[in-house]
Amino acid sequence: MPVDTTSFSQHLISATHNINDPHVTLSTAEITPNAPVVSTITKTRLHGGRQEGVDLVEVNNGAINIRVIPTRGMSILDVTTANLRLGWNSPVDEIVHPAWVNQQNRGRLGWLEAFNEYFVRCGLEWFGPPCEDDHHHAKAEVPAGPVSLHGKIANLPASELQVIVERAKPYNIILRSVVKENQLFGPKFELHTDLVTRPGTNSFQVIDTIRNVGAQTEEFALLYHLNHGSPLLQQGAKLVAPVRHLAPINDQSSSAYIHQYNMYGPPTKGFAEKVFISTLRADRNKKTRVLLKNKARNRGVSIRWNVEKLPCFTIWKNTAAEADGYVTGLEPGTSFPFPRPVERAAKRIPKIKPKQSIQMPLEFTLHTTKADVKAAENAIFKLMKGKYTRLDTQPGGFDPS
Amino acid sequence: MPVDTTSFSQHLISATHNINDPHVTLSTAEITPNAPVVSTITKTRLHGGRQEGVDLVEVNNGAINIRVIPTRGMSILDVTTANLRLGWNSPVDEIVHPAWVNQQNRGRLGWLEAFNEYFVRCGLEWFGPPCEDDHHHAKAEVPAGPVSLHGKIANLPASELQVIVERAKPYNIILRSVVKENQLFGPKFELHTDLVTRPGTNSFQVIDTIRNVGAQTEEFALLYHLNHGSPLLQQGAKLVAPVRHLAPINDQSSSAYIHQYNMYGPPTKGFAEKVFISTLRADRNKKTRVLLKNKARNRGVSIRWNVEKLPCFTIWKNTAAEADGYVTGLEPGTSFPFPRPVERAAKRIPKIKPKQSIQMPLEFTLHTTKADVKAAENAIFKLMKGKYTRLDTQPGGFDPS
Amino acid sequence: MPVDTTSFSQHLISATHNINDPHVTLSTAEITPNAPVVSTITKTRLHGGRQEGVDLVEVNNGAINIRVIPTRGMSILDVTTANLRLGWNSPVDEIVHPAWVNQQNRGRLGWLEAFNEYFVRCGLEWFGPPCEDDHHHAKAEVPAGPVSLHGKIANLPASELQVIVERAKPYNIILRSVVKENQLFGPKFELHTDLVTRPGTNSFQVIDTIRNVGAQTEEFALLYHLNHGSPLLQQGAKLVAPVRHLAPINDQSSSAYIHQYNMYGPPTKGFAEKVFISTLRADRNKKTRVLLKNKARNRGVSIRWNVEKLPCFTIWKNTAAEADGYVTGLEPGTSFPFPRPVERAAKRIPKIKPKQSIQMPLEFTLHTTKADVKAAENAIFKLMKGKYTRLDTQPGGFDPS
Repeated sequence: MPVDTTSFSQHLISATHNINDPHVTLSTAEITPNAPVVSTITKTRLHGGRQEGVDLVEVNNGAINIRVIPTRGMSILDVTTANLRLGWNSPVDEIVHPAWVNQQNRGRLGWLEAFNEYFVRCGLEWFGPPCEDDHHHAKAEVPAGPVSLHGKIANLPASELQVIVERAKPYNIILRSVVKENQLFGPKFELHTDLVTRPGTNSFQVIDTIRNVGAQTEEFALLYHLNHGSPLLQQGAKLVAPVRHLAPINDQSSSAYIHQYNMYGPPTKGFAEKVFISTLRADRNKKTRVLLKNKARNRGVSIRWNVEKLPCFTIWKNTAAEADGYVTGLEPGTSFPFPRPVERAAKRIPKIKPKQSIQMPLEFTLHTTKADVKAAENAIFKLMKGKYTRLDTQPGGFDPS
Repeated sequence: MPVDTTSFSQHLISATHNINDPHVTLSTAEITPNAPVVSTITKTRLHGGRQEGVDLVEVNNGAINIRVIPTRGMSILDVTTANLRLGWNSPVDEIVHPAWVNQQNRGRLGWLEAFNEYFVRCGLEWFGPPCEDDHHHAKAEVPAGPVSLHGKIANLPASELQVIVERAKPYNIILRSVVKENQLFGPKFELHTDLVTRPGTNSFQVIDTIRNVGAQTEEFALLYHLNHGSPLLQQGAKLVAPVRHLAPINDQSSSAYIHQYNMYGPPTKGFAEKVFISTLRADRNKKTRVLLKNKARNRGVSIRWNVEKLPCFTIWKNTAAEADGYVTGLEPGTSFPFPRPVERAAKRIPKIKPKQSIQMPLEFTLHTTKADVKAAENAIFKLMKGKYTRLDTQPGGFDPS
Repeated sequence: MPVDTTSFSQHLISATHNINDPHVTLSTAEITPNAPVVSTITKTRLHGGRQEGVDLVEVNNGAINIRVIPTRGMSILDVTTANLRLGWNSPVDEIVHPAWVNQQNRGRLGWLEAFNEYFVRCGLEWFGPPCEDDHHHAKAEVPAGPVSLHGKIANLPASELQVIVERAKPYNIILRSVVKENQLFGPKFELHTDLVTRPGTNSFQVIDTIRNVGAQTEEFALLYHLNHGSPLLQQGAKLVAPVRHLAPINDQSSSAYIHQYNMYGPPTKGFAEKVFISTLRADRNKKTRVLLKNKARNRGVSIRWNVEKLPCFTIWKNTAAEADGYVTGLEPGTSFPFPRPVERAAKRIPKIKPKQSIQMPLEFTLHTTKADVKAAENAIFKLMKGKYTRLDTQPGGFDPS
């Protein structure tokens, strides 16, 4: 996002300037003493176990606290306010340094060894299950070959990270970062991110811009794996989404479960994950919105994005026992989490030209009253404009034809 | 083990409390000035080569010095006293940080890139050779798939490490640690260890407790790879063990070698390892004991454990040239180091229930006189109670039927 | 090389002495105040992105500046003088810590994730493309199995690194290092390197000595991947080499391109790499020499080595778009970059005996005038002694017969 040149700015991490101070504390009480709400930004180096050497940045805007992990591709561990937490309780209870993660483990499912964030990106070259992919669009480059689960970006570190604070209203706080996924004979991507929050509000934006700094047009892939656990997720919690067309991803998720796609059960030992894929309706500006609300309808989170940039919405229901990972993923993506050759055949893999930048903003709002939850729900109903949802009871509705 | 609440206690490493001081020195001259023997506990951060960032903890109880590697799953590098060292001279002459180890290398034998400890655990999900294992006992979890040599635990770091010193007799020194092996859709294990030694004695205990913090019953596996080299291992060194039944693990180790299973030759260039698997006799409390003694019978180590917890004893004879790794492994385990599907068919893979803790203590005593060696040997003879040993000259005696 | 015992010497890194100071600055203004030219040696710890924790050593001899990466096997990032730089602009724009590199990625092409140096060694157990290699020469060791691109040495750190400065003429500056590639049941290699430069000169030597510290004779492999980019590499740049016999490595590089093997085109989007393999003529002392010169013939580099030690010379032409990596590799090696079984069948894989040391020095000279370039060219013409070059238009001329 455009930033006033008079804004406060400080590098927390910079490969360019050789900066990575273990501990930094900033307060807007000093930076913008006139702002009505005091915010703090802190950076901490973690120690012990697989956390050794991990950097953690916390942005507290006076209303919500956002914990960001530069060492893990600018994933967001969790977001908390007085009576609501966006996040989940993964069996992985440390913030794992990628040096401990071998994505080739367990038949290329090693990504799961560190998976515990609220907000984690899958991509940028590919996401989805391990598969063989011998195609490479660009000339004279090598194909991804044996693809590992969900790609590399979540296990790559921020090369650059800046704190920016606007010195005038609305006194926005911005974490501006760059994560690089590049190599010879492969994609050359930069992920530029502005994580923006206005002091005193219950909301934040994540504005990702993917840049292709290579010389050739490349395929890319981005899925936002947004993971919600207890206590927001509970028996009776419900997803509200303006679904145009929804289908089970496989037989395991089909007819017996499809009509409850948006309703959640209690933690259930040995629960086999159910996955539904969908397209959503949007407003004139192509913006859509989904809401996850608790049983009492007085807590919730709504997430907004552009369906032209992120046309595919995946719902991952993994209501396993709490100790095994009770969680639902709400996952806007550039495509669905089928194997890449399937997505390619379905023409769902987007491309990015040399020097092109593609921006895909996400907005998050935490709701902590019945009125707020209801207002969000009404906004979503409005997107439906009274139209019907196509619900497929069997897989296949999104298969390449 | 239960510890008096008045004991001295200090965190050396803690992911919970964000602690990992590079250098710590503790002396019981200050902690327990009344104790008759002064012990020291030091923590050092290592630098250079593949040692960069490795933490090493030394416990010197006044009689023996134990070097423990928290960064490598609480493995024990070596144990030394005036004229005896438990350990070996691996071709790997650095204490390798797991970040340099890729267990997927060399057909999933990458574990060997760092292998040089006296005491190293194999497990906790599996041990044994690389193989395909598509079984997973727990519901809705993913199988280990292509299994790498000897599992992950030796290349995972301690999340917690405390020094505890008893303030009253016997003034025990305890290293209390937690190593975690967990992930979504896989096992959720914690390894709680008390390494205990009494000041001024030639002995120590390693009391491991495996906890299943997941919600489902899981298979687990633990092999203690206890590796003895020069000078205790030498031509004429001998293993004394109360063998009930012993067999070669494969043709390479069969009839020509079986009758020398407990006798050691000199370092031999190009020696092809021989492996024998066995069950041992025990006393009424299910405790067994083995002894390795030198040629002069004035140096030795004896190791005790519970055969109900660790029913399978593997003898690894690798009397290669000194420069290539002259070593014998004495290996109590929950099963034998066959491929997992073989062990499963033989019903030798134990399970651990949700919230269950399984404790498996090992006791080590260093013997430095003929009398001590002889006493240990006599104790082992007593376990045999004059009964015969079944010696199979060909593999197959422990095969699943 | 032999060093006077009165020389200045300081450890920058030592696993033996537990040394790795993040920042060191040395100046010969203090060490050898009588030397006519002031040189500096600095060590810096890098931060941010995948550079976190990387050590970089710069040797500035008053005429050229050499940047060496101990953390990456003593690779040389680049060498610069006033108007010439040896190096290239890889899409990988950070100096990547090996902890971020998974050589098993992308069908075992993960080596490319960090590849951006001017001087990078491939080896020491193998180099070349991923392949299956089930042979192992030594007894009772395990074969390399599924071989990854270009071996491990570039992603292993220096265990020892010393600065040595001669206190008398010619006041040579020497970086003396040891990198270890070893494991149980595999090769036990040490790479001892003296990087030597004389203050005020435009040249430096890299004197590698491979030592086999194991007990058995082993195969080894070493390829110097010397990578030249803009601006020395440009349309009209030319390689001058005393070629005895040259052939394309595959059909992609054959007849249409063979006659331009030594001429370079401009950066070309989607250029498919061309690779030529060759043997070179040498002088009576078995020394050969190649020259890469720019279009104006006033800049160049010449490289000398012993053809008995490094009999195979590979030319890698990858004149892709600048953003994708515009580069040519001039690659003296112990063999050609065919799959190992091919090289073995061709009897091109050398062996090293127990305790044997094999030294293979390389000399680099930067040329920055027309006269210098011309002199180097003439020296190479002299090696040809008017003899013909055998140019094969099709692959196969070096195939095992």
